[in-house]
Amino acid sequence: MAWYQYSFRLPAFRRGFHLITHHIEEQIPGLYEIKIGLAHIFIQHTSASLTLNENADPTVRGDFERHFNVMVPENAPYYKHTYEGSDDMPAHIKASLLGSSITIPITNGHFNLGTWQGVYLCEFRNHASGRRITVTVQGE
Amino acid sequence: MAWYQYSFRLPAFRRGFHLITHHIEEQIPGLYEIKIGLAHIFIQHTSASLTLNENADPTVRGDFERHFNVMVPENAPYYKHTYEGSDDMPAHIKASLLGSSITIPITNGHFNLGTWQGVYLCEFRNHASGRRITVTVQGE
Amino acid sequence: MAWYQYSFRLPAFRRGFHLITHHIEEQIPGLYEIKIGLAHIFIQHTSASLTLNENADPTVRGDFERHFNVMVPENAPYYKHTYEGSDDMPAHIKASLLGSSITIPITNGHFNLGTWQGVYLCEFRNHASGRRITVTVQGE
Repeated sequence: MAWYQYSFRLPAFRRGFHLITHHIEEQIPGLYEIKIGLAHIFIQHTSASLTLNENADPTVRGDFERHFNVMVPENAPYYKHTYEGSDDMPAHIKASLLGSSITIPITNGHFNLGTWQGVYLCEFRNHASGRRITVTVQGE
Repeated sequence: MAWYQYSFRLPAFRRGFHLITHHIEEQIPGLYEIKIGLAHIFIQHTSASLTLNENADPTVRGDFERHFNVMVPENAPYYKHTYEGSDDMPAHIKASLLGSSITIPITNGHFNLGTWQGVYLCEFRNHASGRRITVTVQGE
Repeated sequence: MAWYQYSFRLPAFRRGFHLITHHIEEQIPGLYEIKIGLAHIFIQHTSASLTLNENADPTVRGDFERHFNVMVPENAPYYKHTYEGSDDMPAHIKASLLGSSITIPITNGHFNLGTWQGVYLCEFRNHASGRRITVTVQGE
């Protein structure tokens, strides 16, 4: 039974949805020592998320950005938390809709993802610096 | 400390929300050997989800299907990823809203669920084959 | 390697979003014995959720309540599961949107949360009693 924990900061990404599978993998060398296990990938912020989705066509990520901007609009008349800018409260709501962490099975030293699955960083703020991530890898 | 990992394919389900708690339990015999632990249930696709919800009244599952079709419509004018059919891009968005995995506590060899909780397969495509699942069971 | 599992009932909260980080921490003394690990916090209900979000300004929690009531309205014409009250079916949908559990990294005996992250209980029913929680702590 082995435990590894890695904390690091991603590069800054512009607002939108970004494929970061390889950014994560290259930070967690313990992954390759696990035959059966789990990787828990956690973002330490309340205005960005991690999710798994389609890893091939960039229009999918663009459609995510456009859809979430309709489903969670800026300047909704019922927002009271407005002093950090019009992108702030929607960012908090989107962060909980998509979540702060994902957990991926590990099999024979690799993320056991489906063919079309990749890790997305969902950046909801107009101007954010690099987001802090903590990955906990465990297994045997 | 024990680790078990099971990969299997569910039968094909029609578009909608389906109660699959027993489909999962019958595939993971290691569950019964764990006194305290966790089961991580993961779907290896980007157009279907797993979630926990009400396990009794089928109208709840129907209302889920109807509500998600309003909240994430087909043919939204801002979709650019359209060449795989009108159900494809909504399926990707719904998949991230509801998520690719659930984690359930294990207590004395059983899922420690609330009285009304069951595992749903959320099938978002009109025509899908059986979905691939990987369950990782760990505990002592 | 250590495993701890705690089941307890939160006090009853009114409908809305409530910061409960300390309610959780005070129930799980095993947390302080873990150097590297994970805490899985699970709610055994289908009309309430757990999520992580902003831990400072109460208007954020108010805006969550207002936004989710727009995004998942009561009395939608397509609901068929209506006999438990107008708040019931929206509660089920919100419960799956926000999820039944969160997993938090543990580092040196503490939740390794970002500066602004706190645990929210999301209470979706108008009249609920205290919600049952099971926390599974593991690590070394």
